[in-house]
Amino acid sequence: MEENKKTTRISPRTLSGFMELLPRPQQQMERIMEVLRSTYARYGFTPLDTPVIESTDVLLAKGGGETEKQVYRFQKGDADLSLRFDLTVPLAKYVALHYGELAFPFRRYQIGKVYRGERAQRGRFREFYQADIDIIGDGKLDVTNEAEIPAIIYQTFTSLGLSRFKIRVNNRKILNGFYAMNDLSEKSGDIMRTVDKLDKIGADKVRALLIDEIGLSEAQANEILTFIAIRGTNAEVLSALEGYADRNELFDLGLEELKTVVRYLAAFGVPEENFAVDLTIARGLDYYTGTVYETTLIDHPEIGSVCSGGRYDNLAEYYTDKQLPGVGISIGLTRLFYVLGEQGMLNDALPTAPADVLVIPMTEDLSAAVALATQLRGAGVRTQLYTEQKKFKAKMNYADKLGIPYVVFLGEDEIRDGIVACKDMESGEQTNLPYEATLARIRDGIACRNAGCVILEK
Amino acid sequence: MEENKKTTRISPRTLSGFMELLPRPQQQMERIMEVLRSTYARYGFTPLDTPVIESTDVLLAKGGGETEKQVYRFQKGDADLSLRFDLTVPLAKYVALHYGELAFPFRRYQIGKVYRGERAQRGRFREFYQADIDIIGDGKLDVTNEAEIPAIIYQTFTSLGLSRFKIRVNNRKILNGFYAMNDLSEKSGDIMRTVDKLDKIGADKVRALLIDEIGLSEAQANEILTFIAIRGTNAEVLSALEGYADRNELFDLGLEELKTVVRYLAAFGVPEENFAVDLTIARGLDYYTGTVYETTLIDHPEIGSVCSGGRYDNLAEYYTDKQLPGVGISIGLTRLFYVLGEQGMLNDALPTAPADVLVIPMTEDLSAAVALATQLRGAGVRTQLYTEQKKFKAKMNYADKLGIPYVVFLGEDEIRDGIVACKDMESGEQTNLPYEATLARIRDGIACRNAGCVILEK
Repeated sequence: MEENKKTTRISPRTLSGFMELLPRPQQQMERIMEVLRSTYARYGFTPLDTPVIESTDVLLAKGGGETEKQVYRFQKGDADLSLRFDLTVPLAKYVALHYGELAFPFRRYQIGKVYRGERAQRGRFREFYQADIDIIGDGKLDVTNEAEIPAIIYQTFTSLGLSRFKIRVNNRKILNGFYAMNDLSEKSGDIMRTVDKLDKIGADKVRALLIDEIGLSEAQANEILTFIAIRGTNAEVLSALEGYADRNELFDLGLEELKTVVRYLAAFGVPEENFAVDLTIARGLDYYTGTVYETTLIDHPEIGSVCSGGRYDNLAEYYTDKQLPGVGISIGLTRLFYVLGEQGMLNDALPTAPADVLVIPMTEDLSAAVALATQLRGAGVRTQLYTEQKKFKAKMNYADKLGIPYVVFLGEDEIRDGIVACKDMESGEQTNLPYEATLARIRDGIACRNAGCVILEK
Repeated sequence: MEENKKTTRISPRTLSGFMELLPRPQQQMERIMEVLRSTYARYGFTPLDTPVIESTDVLLAKGGGETEKQVYRFQKGDADLSLRFDLTVPLAKYVALHYGELAFPFRRYQIGKVYRGERAQRGRFREFYQADIDIIGDGKLDVTNEAEIPAIIYQTFTSLGLSRFKIRVNNRKILNGFYAMNDLSEKSGDIMRTVDKLDKIGADKVRALLIDEIGLSEAQANEILTFIAIRGTNAEVLSALEGYADRNELFDLGLEELKTVVRYLAAFGVPEENFAVDLTIARGLDYYTGTVYETTLIDHPEIGSVCSGGRYDNLAEYYTDKQLPGVGISIGLTRLFYVLGEQGMLNDALPTAPADVLVIPMTEDLSAAVALATQLRGAGVRTQLYTEQKKFKAKMNYADKLGIPYVVFLGEDEIRDGIVACKDMESGEQTNLPYEATLARIRDGIACRNAGCVILEK
């Protein structure tokens, strides 16, 4: 029978495009998730968890587009099912479905896996975590919520250990108002797609494309390039924008909103150097209607935005006639984690071992060692008891390989004398102290080792 | 265009058999998960996260059985894919695949969603969380690991708030050895299935079935009934089992293992009243080879086992010729949560609001209120700023509806006097104190409210 089994053995493998981490990086990922959860909670967001599978007609209510081709869709019995491809559509469904049982503004965060059957390539994932927060209003939502978002982004990335990042903010009403005042509303989509290439191809080529391909006059093209070239401190940019005021109502409204966002930055604790009004930020075409956000790592512009989102006016129009405006941001966590790893920015100095202490019994009867492990666990210390029949050296190698910071030995002598032998695996220093003193030493050491942040800037 | 959209509106709904919680129960679920994570971590288990989707040939390597029919299986491009139906098969794949990069014993926990397309019925779920821990050895695994499992179960359920539960333990070697010494090995599967009905149909009917359907002699049937009727304290049961010793090697080995498990119970901190050797526990047929575990709530036997598992000898035989013995337990978290809710056992006194404090600005300029919210958040207090244009009463209703314990008001007077008005929404008491004193009051109140456990025994 054993022989039979051997012939049918399957080669173990994980699907391409699916992240499966070894224990050490998984611990780092867990730390990042814990920072996100606790930061979002501190800003008054409630956790949600919606199903990974939804009815296809519900998930694809909006229909069309690139996304639909990438969806994991299948039949089960009579049911046409799909895996969620983002967390926004499930949120829209959730709010429409449970509308009567929610209090608005409804603030939720969700960290969950989503699925897109993209062409597999390095650094692209078919199963990946998104970490989203959204604030949903019932009919209305005050602009102060848009002003609060940069604070949440700032706190999130600061808590992760980053300081060299920039939250770039624009307002869709300003963009749309500007295009309207130049009679370019119908071409605004094409224009924004072209302007988006500015960083890559430069102003001259963008001007040429605007004239040759989109058919703008030279004056119009220059007007656009002048507008998006507005740079400077927040005050300087706002002042330059004032020069366009009183020509279009939507523009003026957007400028008011942007000024509100900027006005409360300091009170929200966001330093000016982590924030920039950037008129080139557009974030797609239809969905966003007010403030839009992107977040870039100053030393790694090639990564693109690591946290993006914006204000929208109608979250759930495909499910309900209720007007549900909102503002939200999303972090593509799996890709971010992958990139941080690639860049060597994950802090390897933080403990990733499954335990802080490995208890190695040195006596036949294990009762004293078991009791010690139980006592340490009761004191909140992550403790593993090692009881395999191995040579002493193999036991120490095990602690070493896992990076367990302390090894505790308990032999007849220690038990008789009421002490614990405890070795610091990093310094090699061994102490022989009573339990309480040993516990204090371990606690101090662990606290010290855990003091850093999970991301390291170099 | 708006009209067009309205005609294609989709009714929002969640699939039957998929749990989607409202914010309050979701918070309770999060608390339970947090208890599981921190308890497992304290026993030296490392978190893992494997893909929800696997290649079908990998996932169904073992093949056959009821499970296969329930699997969510589909094509994507050329790939034959399936959603995981438990966390054990992905663990087996993981350990086989990453064998060279792991240190053994490998201790991991995983809390993740699994999928089974069962017939939908009340309290049965097609998407549900399992919370698993496993300890995997390389070639060998010491029996002390089996002795440790009851401690983890005990600590987990105690931390959740339960005291009236019983960890029932048996050993498959004892059962198989007993059947062998009575020449009943070939019928052991049928016998165990019949014996399993003991609680429901009683000893006489079990005896009749054993004789009439399985073809045992009356002596054999009585022998079995005598054996499984062994009851008493751990010492009494072990003593009764000694009476069967020296007749079968496997039995004797199982008895030694069971004695080891019982011997270290006290040192592992497991009270005798939460533990019972129960010779009726079998846990299926093929997989388990040593200690097996079930956990029942004493006042709710109808729920069945809430945490089960056991020792196995060959985790990954379908993927590798490496011998990988292990021991593990699993909690069916979604079903457990559902049942606890049905029984009214979730502690509604614990805070489930998204925030501890709602800051209501009473001035046109929001800077002071924003700064206060920022300060509170900096102090670790979960704070929401309420800035919607509503009547005062509506704002208070919002705090009330969400169960936010404290509301803070900041008007011109408070700003001028450097104080904060803070209302305890439960007692109605309002204080007007400086920031530090207000913060201290809020912190004390929150700590007090959070002091209980998430599950309440009644």
